[in-house]
Amino acid sequence: MDMLGRFAMKLAMLCFGILLATALPVDAASPAPADILKNSPDVDWRPLDPSSLLVMSLPAGPVVIDLAPAFAPASVANITALVRAHYFDGSTVVRAQDNFVVQWAQDEEREKAAPALKGQAEFERPLSATFIALADSDTYAARTGFDGDFPAATDGRQEWLTHCYGMVAVARDTAPDSGTGVELYAVIGQAPRQLDRNFTPVGRVVQGVERLSVLPRGTGSLGFYQTAAERVPIASIRFASDLSSAEQPKLEVLKTSSATFKAYVEARRNQIGMYVRPAGHMDVCNIPLPVRASR
Amino acid sequence: MDMLGRFAMKLAMLCFGILLATALPVDAASPAPADILKNSPDVDWRPLDPSSLLVMSLPAGPVVIDLAPAFAPASVANITALVRAHYFDGSTVVRAQDNFVVQWAQDEEREKAAPALKGQAEFERPLSATFIALADSDTYAARTGFDGDFPAATDGRQEWLTHCYGMVAVARDTAPDSGTGVELYAVIGQAPRQLDRNFTPVGRVVQGVERLSVLPRGTGSLGFYQTAAERVPIASIRFASDLSSAEQPKLEVLKTSSATFKAYVEARRNQIGMYVRPAGHMDVCNIPLPVRASR
Repeated sequence: MDMLGRFAMKLAMLCFGILLATALPVDAASPAPADILKNSPDVDWRPLDPSSLLVMSLPAGPVVIDLAPAFAPASVANITALVRAHYFDGSTVVRAQDNFVVQWAQDEEREKAAPALKGQAEFERPLSATFIALADSDTYAARTGFDGDFPAATDGRQEWLTHCYGMVAVARDTAPDSGTGVELYAVIGQAPRQLDRNFTPVGRVVQGVERLSVLPRGTGSLGFYQTAAERVPIASIRFASDLSSAEQPKLEVLKTSSATFKAYVEARRNQIGMYVRPAGHMDVCNIPLPVRASR
Repeated sequence: MDMLGRFAMKLAMLCFGILLATALPVDAASPAPADILKNSPDVDWRPLDPSSLLVMSLPAGPVVIDLAPAFAPASVANITALVRAHYFDGSTVVRAQDNFVVQWAQDEEREKAAPALKGQAEFERPLSATFIALADSDTYAARTGFDGDFPAATDGRQEWLTHCYGMVAVARDTAPDSGTGVELYAVIGQAPRQLDRNFTPVGRVVQGVERLSVLPRGTGSLGFYQTAAERVPIASIRFASDLSSAEQPKLEVLKTSSATFKAYVEARRNQIGMYVRPAGHMDVCNIPLPVRASR
């Protein structure tokens, strides 16, 4: 084989190797949406404010939560008081229900001794001018979209955060206002949208959600762990702003009001390459909000 | 305290204990849908045919897959040939992408030496009279519902299986008919409905999906494991009918055509108890198809 022939052979082998390596399906990382993010102007990204970020320390590493005080001011104030009191230090993940939620709490004794806090049902708020609607229809709401860093929905009058993958909310007992923030849960499966307007979402995991989603499922009722030994220890939960500079997560989110975000959503609606029939639509919970390391 | 007082105190403590133990949110296990299943007549359930069930042996235990030959006859025939040839013995889970899919395969050398099979793009079929429509609107399809043991959708002419949590489908390269069944994937996150009519679903995990969903996420592109050591060994994949009676999973599914299933869906649409505002709607991928141990 001549040099050109050997070159062509190498190219063919490389190409075959790439094909094998990219056996599909391809998700958010498919070329079009990923390229849009890669080529986006820096001005379309916003640094996440460390004073609004919680860092939960699991044995596997940190889980970073972007809080939503604009949607749940009283609940975020409660959680802020608890975090500042180091309430969650030594707490545990007490529940992991497959395709639903993980939930964390202190043990019963310490929960009874928690700071006295008043719960509030912050299930919805009046529709804000900052709501950005998607054109796509939705099973649960008249309109879905985004508001700031969060997926949201509206009936044209009220607005609420939607229980998409990675959303964090306040667990409660039967009374709607019984959730003080001492127990929180995160969604790790198909969006349980039936919880919308029934629970108070307080934020969204922006880094490390996979450290929650791989936790062993509890074998008790509702996925609660049946023994203390199964519970996953949480060394601490801190505000990023209370950590040393070296420990602080430095993250940026794509502004949902940016042209890049609009193009990214459109690219996810109509993915090409592997797709013979672009969906043409996209569920609000099937549009992961892009986060990247600060530059 | 008199006897009545002590009794009242005990009752109050018991009640408080129950409240603590049931800190929410509650999912499919919430009283109404669970009670409907518990009180259902046996005639509304159907034993799963062991000759249509695959049993994948992971270190953590079995994963049982109910095949869908009525939707993907050629692909299921391919998989049947591979399983009967013990092709998947010693294969591995090669990919785990958070909130998306896990995928399994043989190593490249053995995949090249796989039995010669012709792939076929079985993305949809003509609408069958067995399709049972849901009233709920959907972001992606004109109508969603169920057909036999599977979630499905239709445009009124064609019908296809929907990529809900736990669905198993054929991985492929760029050509639509390039998936022979040597690589398969299972959904472990928010339903990636954009894959509908772009890939060939061949079945659904009916037991042990949590053994896939907790696998460590791969750190390579698209969640592929970067080293052979990370891959999760699959001792074998067998038809349940080829296992000894003791090893066979003995499972029943609730007939989607039954009155019990209809009541169960309605109960999921309008859950009570914890819910101050029943959703009134339910996404087809938010209705887990009930499976139970045979009686």
